[in-house]
Amino acid sequence: MRRAAGLFGGVVVAVAESRANTLFNLAERVGMAREAFASFDNVQVEGFNGLLMNFVQEHDARVVLRGLRAVSDFEYEFQLAGMNRNLYPDVETLFLTPAEKYTFISATMVREVAKFGGDVSKFVSPNVVTRLQKKYDLN
Amino acid sequence: MRRAAGLFGGVVVAVAESRANTLFNLAERVGMAREAFASFDNVQVEGFNGLLMNFVQEHDARVVLRGLRAVSDFEYEFQLAGMNRNLYPDVETLFLTPAEKYTFISATMVREVAKFGGDVSKFVSPNVVTRLQKKYDLN
Amino acid sequence: MRRAAGLFGGVVVAVAESRANTLFNLAERVGMAREAFASFDNVQVEGFNGLLMNFVQEHDARVVLRGLRAVSDFEYEFQLAGMNRNLYPDVETLFLTPAEKYTFISATMVREVAKFGGDVSKFVSPNVVTRLQKKYDLN
Amino acid sequence: MRRAAGLFGGVVVAVAESRANTLFNLAERVGMAREAFASFDNVQVEGFNGLLMNFVQEHDARVVLRGLRAVSDFEYEFQLAGMNRNLYPDVETLFLTPAEKYTFISATMVREVAKFGGDVSKFVSPNVVTRLQKKYDLN
Amino acid sequence: MRRAAGLFGGVVVAVAESRANTLFNLAERVGMAREAFASFDNVQVEGFNGLLMNFVQEHDARVVLRGLRAVSDFEYEFQLAGMNRNLYPDVETLFLTPAEKYTFISATMVREVAKFGGDVSKFVSPNVVTRLQKKYDLN
Amino acid sequence: MRRAAGLFGGVVVAVAESRANTLFNLAERVGMAREAFASFDNVQVEGFNGLLMNFVQEHDARVVLRGLRAVSDFEYEFQLAGMNRNLYPDVETLFLTPAEKYTFISATMVREVAKFGGDVSKFVSPNVVTRLQKKYDLN
Repeated sequence: MRRAAGLFGGVVVAVAESRANTLFNLAERVGMAREAFASFDNVQVEGFNGLLMNFVQEHDARVVLRGLRAVSDFEYEFQLAGMNRNLYPDVETLFLTPAEKYTFISATMVREVAKFGGDVSKFVSPNVVTRLQKKYDLN
Repeated sequence: MRRAAGLFGGVVVAVAESRANTLFNLAERVGMAREAFASFDNVQVEGFNGLLMNFVQEHDARVVLRGLRAVSDFEYEFQLAGMNRNLYPDVETLFLTPAEKYTFISATMVREVAKFGGDVSKFVSPNVVTRLQKKYDLN
Repeated sequence: MRRAAGLFGGVVVAVAESRANTLFNLAERVGMAREAFASFDNVQVEGFNGLLMNFVQEHDARVVLRGLRAVSDFEYEFQLAGMNRNLYPDVETLFLTPAEKYTFISATMVREVAKFGGDVSKFVSPNVVTRLQKKYDLN
Repeated sequence: MRRAAGLFGGVVVAVAESRANTLFNLAERVGMAREAFASFDNVQVEGFNGLLMNFVQEHDARVVLRGLRAVSDFEYEFQLAGMNRNLYPDVETLFLTPAEKYTFISATMVREVAKFGGDVSKFVSPNVVTRLQKKYDLN
Repeated sequence: MRRAAGLFGGVVVAVAESRANTLFNLAERVGMAREAFASFDNVQVEGFNGLLMNFVQEHDARVVLRGLRAVSDFEYEFQLAGMNRNLYPDVETLFLTPAEKYTFISATMVREVAKFGGDVSKFVSPNVVTRLQKKYDLN
Repeated sequence: MRRAAGLFGGVVVAVAESRANTLFNLAERVGMAREAFASFDNVQVEGFNGLLMNFVQEHDARVVLRGLRAVSDFEYEFQLAGMNRNLYPDVETLFLTPAEKYTFISATMVREVAKFGGDVSKFVSPNVVTRLQKKYDLN
């Protein structure tokens, strides 16, 4: 987010409502992201459901910025970018790769470690550590 | 299908019953495929459940023809072809790659776009557009 | 297992309790592994739930040995090894690749073949064949 | 280039001098790029040798924009972006994926086809077709 | 080749003249292939240079059959099939995957092993073993 | 190397003579490795040419330990391990994955950066920095 905020005039973080049962609901996930990005003046966090491209249009955005962490991300992202380009040719999808110290971090694994009481403070920001401990009644 | 029908004397489209909850049931999926391939004289569409290789034997087929769209398809297909070759050495698995304009099309994404009222007519045949609209009560 | 048992003084097979609905429960899977590895003096089989790294520490193990069968395994394993190295730097993750005759064997496909009465004796050991037949009431 | 020129105030196309023996030398490649992008007001084309990041700094650029066409590009690009981020943390690497109709185009294959007199006008711009014909004395 | 010969009425093995310095020249490679496939009535072996698609047309072939051994083959083959489909839409590219016992065999590694006197009889046919020994003056 | 030295009683670093023109010759590369690993009591560095498996047998080694940095390494390594297992079934190939801070380091890129006077001290050990500077007459 720090890197995105430096590149663009304004950044809207789009937190998707998930159809699957997630550990945190949409409001909680929006809340965590707002806490984490509070110090960035040009970053706002919004939840959405429905099509990403509708959200993009409502916010008059011209770029969808996505992270590419691994080869296995790439093909899904390539399909998604292709679909979106066909639906709305005026919006571009751009990709960032993570700094190397973040490459091995997987949300699934962080939840797993947290669930069994392992220390995840190296992997997520302090406000997320607290939320994970509360969720799992660990503190 | 157009390309497969030109290569072989006859083609049987095998529509698998899915264990997962699918948007369309087996009969609907067989129906859509029959509509889409109605103009091909040497193509028939059949639903099946159980092992693909049993279906192959019932139809006296000698080749299983599969599409390879992405690297991530490849390893699953390689395993499947290997298992099938061990079970029935007389049947060969052959692969086609899609024309480039189809490479980014994912059934999951098409359903998602259709569900929220997006236009999928670029991605699927007209009879499928109609069926998707009915399914989602959009028309 | 034969290869691992030859490389290390002792090997503990860690059978994970799964959160998903598995065909065999934990006790059954531990039982099958014990039958299959009974002839190895320096191999023991244990079930576990919770974090693998806790299991590793309880058994004073210094190495986690994993199999790498396909490219698609690699990225998950790379993330897992990275997470574990951050949690417990004293434990190393080492990888083996399978002999070529095992590369195409997928547990999901074996279950599928067995479920519909196909012959899986080429793919799994005899005691697993028997257990699969019983589970599917096929004998 | 059309997409890049729409996203950024100005774009500098950096044509690298190659250590390998290339079909066209640096001046020819710069020339072809200038012809192809002549209609874009905010695009300039420059040759360079040495480190890309030095070129980036000389032009006061803040973003390196790269194309990601295939999975096999990804790992090289990931390494390159990581090296460059360590050398110059103020410059970001962003990636675009090609429109699907360009995904299968490989410069090596285009040269091969042109060399043997095949028609490459579907794959490259008209000025490059002419240059290839002259280079191979085909017209 | 055994599998291809069973699927099609006739098979032409196209041995490419290489631009790189190869261990065996084109005539030798054609010779080795003819020895290896002598027992197949419907298989002929021909050397060629220039574009594969010209060779395909000269032989009135309708299918290009290629092997897919590994993920890293896939993207090159996908590009090649796409280029060829654009050049000659009437010719289809089909792919076979190798039996598992051949998946790890690499021509480069076989040459390397043979060069230093290692035993390659498990990897190549007897006539190729003899030719490799002669080439490296090993017998 | 630190991690390998902790896992095994003794480690022999095998530095291969390259057929390609390398920046440093075999003696220089052996020298650099000896400098870098001088503090490890159970590590020795040896150059070799010919087959790795002959080197392995001369040193009575039972394990070949290799690094797996990226997906693109995996398939080559899988082939190499398969070939070697067929040649010498008693020797096992084991793999380590790098710590995340090393994942993006490529020898080719380090040489490139060093050649143009860039700072590579973050990527290689101090003795290698000095050797690179001398080689490129940069100091």
